[in-house]
Amino acid sequence: MAFLVKKFGGTSVGTVERIKHVAKLLVAAKQSGDDVVVVVSAMSGETNRLVALAREMMPAVVDVRELDVLLSTGEQVTIALLAMALKELGVEARSYTGSQVRILTDSSHSKARIINIDKAPIMNDIEQGHIVVVAGFQGVDERGNITTLGRGGSDTSAVALAAALGCDECQIYTDVDGVYTTDPRVESRARRLEKITFEEMLEMASLGSKVLQIRAVEFAGKYNVPLRVLSSFEPGDGTLITLDDEENQMEQALVSGIAFNRDEAQITVAGVADKPGIAYSILGPIADLNIEVDVILQNIGENGLTDFTFTVHRDEYGRVIEFLKSRQDELGAELIHGNDRIVKLSIVGVGMRSHAGIASRMFKALADNGINLRMITTSEIKISVVIDENFLELGVRSLHEEFELAEPTQTS
Amino acid sequence: MAFLVKKFGGTSVGTVERIKHVAKLLVAAKQSGDDVVVVVSAMSGETNRLVALAREMMPAVVDVRELDVLLSTGEQVTIALLAMALKELGVEARSYTGSQVRILTDSSHSKARIINIDKAPIMNDIEQGHIVVVAGFQGVDERGNITTLGRGGSDTSAVALAAALGCDECQIYTDVDGVYTTDPRVESRARRLEKITFEEMLEMASLGSKVLQIRAVEFAGKYNVPLRVLSSFEPGDGTLITLDDEENQMEQALVSGIAFNRDEAQITVAGVADKPGIAYSILGPIADLNIEVDVILQNIGENGLTDFTFTVHRDEYGRVIEFLKSRQDELGAELIHGNDRIVKLSIVGVGMRSHAGIASRMFKALADNGINLRMITTSEIKISVVIDENFLELGVRSLHEEFELAEPTQTS
Repeated sequence: MAFLVKKFGGTSVGTVERIKHVAKLLVAAKQSGDDVVVVVSAMSGETNRLVALAREMMPAVVDVRELDVLLSTGEQVTIALLAMALKELGVEARSYTGSQVRILTDSSHSKARIINIDKAPIMNDIEQGHIVVVAGFQGVDERGNITTLGRGGSDTSAVALAAALGCDECQIYTDVDGVYTTDPRVESRARRLEKITFEEMLEMASLGSKVLQIRAVEFAGKYNVPLRVLSSFEPGDGTLITLDDEENQMEQALVSGIAFNRDEAQITVAGVADKPGIAYSILGPIADLNIEVDVILQNIGENGLTDFTFTVHRDEYGRVIEFLKSRQDELGAELIHGNDRIVKLSIVGVGMRSHAGIASRMFKALADNGINLRMITTSEIKISVVIDENFLELGVRSLHEEFELAEPTQTS
Repeated sequence: MAFLVKKFGGTSVGTVERIKHVAKLLVAAKQSGDDVVVVVSAMSGETNRLVALAREMMPAVVDVRELDVLLSTGEQVTIALLAMALKELGVEARSYTGSQVRILTDSSHSKARIINIDKAPIMNDIEQGHIVVVAGFQGVDERGNITTLGRGGSDTSAVALAAALGCDECQIYTDVDGVYTTDPRVESRARRLEKITFEEMLEMASLGSKVLQIRAVEFAGKYNVPLRVLSSFEPGDGTLITLDDEENQMEQALVSGIAFNRDEAQITVAGVADKPGIAYSILGPIADLNIEVDVILQNIGENGLTDFTFTVHRDEYGRVIEFLKSRQDELGAELIHGNDRIVKLSIVGVGMRSHAGIASRMFKALADNGINLRMITTSEIKISVVIDENFLELGVRSLHEEFELAEPTQTS
């Protein structure tokens, strides 16, 4: 007997059969006594098909207002089909587009922010025992223009609805059955986490565990909406993502997971003047090129000079090196060099806050396996190291073992 | 320098290239000084694809509210793509769904009637020099539910917009270059009509010249919106459909066109009591079967008995004969018989009203060619005969010649 928002992504509603399967899941939830609002994405492939059409129309720069009108049809198709599937199973259902709800956003087409949600019509339907089907990813601005929240925005729609409606949980159905201690393809003993905090999830997500959209997790944290990740295809409780409250801390492990990112490249601007503004003079123009920088690291300088190092996505490596070399004189740098065969490896856990010595345990475990650390950065609940890409799997497995993340076995 | 609504159907916007072609036509009109509101249908095939998806979801009876949510995405895709194509050509354009305009309808999903159109936002855009792109076929009811006007409803949307906005003309672009005196595939000398009245067009349309939706013509006639049918693919003035005013009558031919319908079947209930209510007792139950009846004919009876004859679509012939035979005793009919190898052939023209002898010229022309008339019915501006299907082409050509409808040639 709970009031739930359930969100199904493009893969979960990718075919007529899968939509029917989702309808059955929803009817089962309804029959067990839950009230359900369901948020759906476009059928997988549909958004890409529409984007390709738009590109054919406007090869250079696509008009964002019209792109939103186009893309929003993707979810509209899904809500209608899912509502039909529910009715076919004998359950009352009603679909809503973003405009119909109405999910009011600002006017930033293709990356709109939700301002307000009108809960009255949905609550009215819920009280009448209906399942309410809402198009994710889309909204409407004050002047009635259709807006979209950007890729993955359906997660955000779901969390925003759960917050506005005061739901007990926002359940995100995906093609994985939860959040794992690390990638099971790298460490077969990786274990599904029953619980994780919003902060940990943010660190895991931004480090490449692409289960949830970062923005949705931030949103859920901000409004304290319990989030649950679970599988559309297999039964199970998934992973619950909640506030880092005292109750949770009691049972908190030191380290919750091992995250990594294969696609990094490291660039060093060596021997630049150690003076105010040097970081901006290097990174400002790179941001202007619309290149995202991940790790940034600058050590104490000597003789008025310092080395400045950062990482970018591997695909941008050549472009950044070339750009910096063209500006080498201007920057007064002795050397521009880098490496695009590196990866980032991190341990994440709120338990770190209250426990000393986690970092040294990490470094020792890696050293014991002969892994050289090229860079180290730390935050409150995360320690990241940059290592040679050849050592990634070894690194993940040694840390997974060091912090006892594996499934407990009979013999242990 | 005119204010025009231009409507393009599914075939005219069936591919990216065709949408770009439509955009060029519109830009040319704009550059020649016209103000343009354009109404578009779903890309050809899209509506059928969506209907098929709906049928997969609800094989028996599809929920009409959700079907409208689904189908309305078809035109929404087209408006966005066309607006993009226009912007790519450097013209300001803005798309509107039915809800956005807003085209207010009643709540009869899948066959909604337009109640009101909010002209302010469109006029505002037009004043700013924009081309306004509106989704045809769709509207919104008072409670914000998406509605559709039924198949071919885009023509109706276009006419309704032209009426609401006070446009000079509503131009319907199709894959033919106008309305012809008869089907050019049957009579190669068929001539494009420069002008025709609404009433004539209604008679032509209902008789099988499937250029325009009947409902749109009725609507245009009611609000006196000049309609023009023209080709998306070939330049030309098309055919203007206007009120039957005095100016038009001056130059009116006696007969404007020869219409025909190949798909008819004739059924006779012979020897029934010639008493009040007999027509209803035969046709009422047939209407209940959702079978449309075209020609209905009952002659003066003898000895208290009469023969009652009507035509239906050829596909329904077997079903109707079987049904009537099962009720033969109840009806007290001597015989139920029929013929599914017949066709209906008609001459249409407002000129008939003021000229006697048109009917006899028609009958003589057919008799001279050895064509036997099985049934005759007449209205104010139309005379129809039912003949053996083998004589259709001969009949069309003889009447086309009799009423001098062919293109004038050098030698005549």
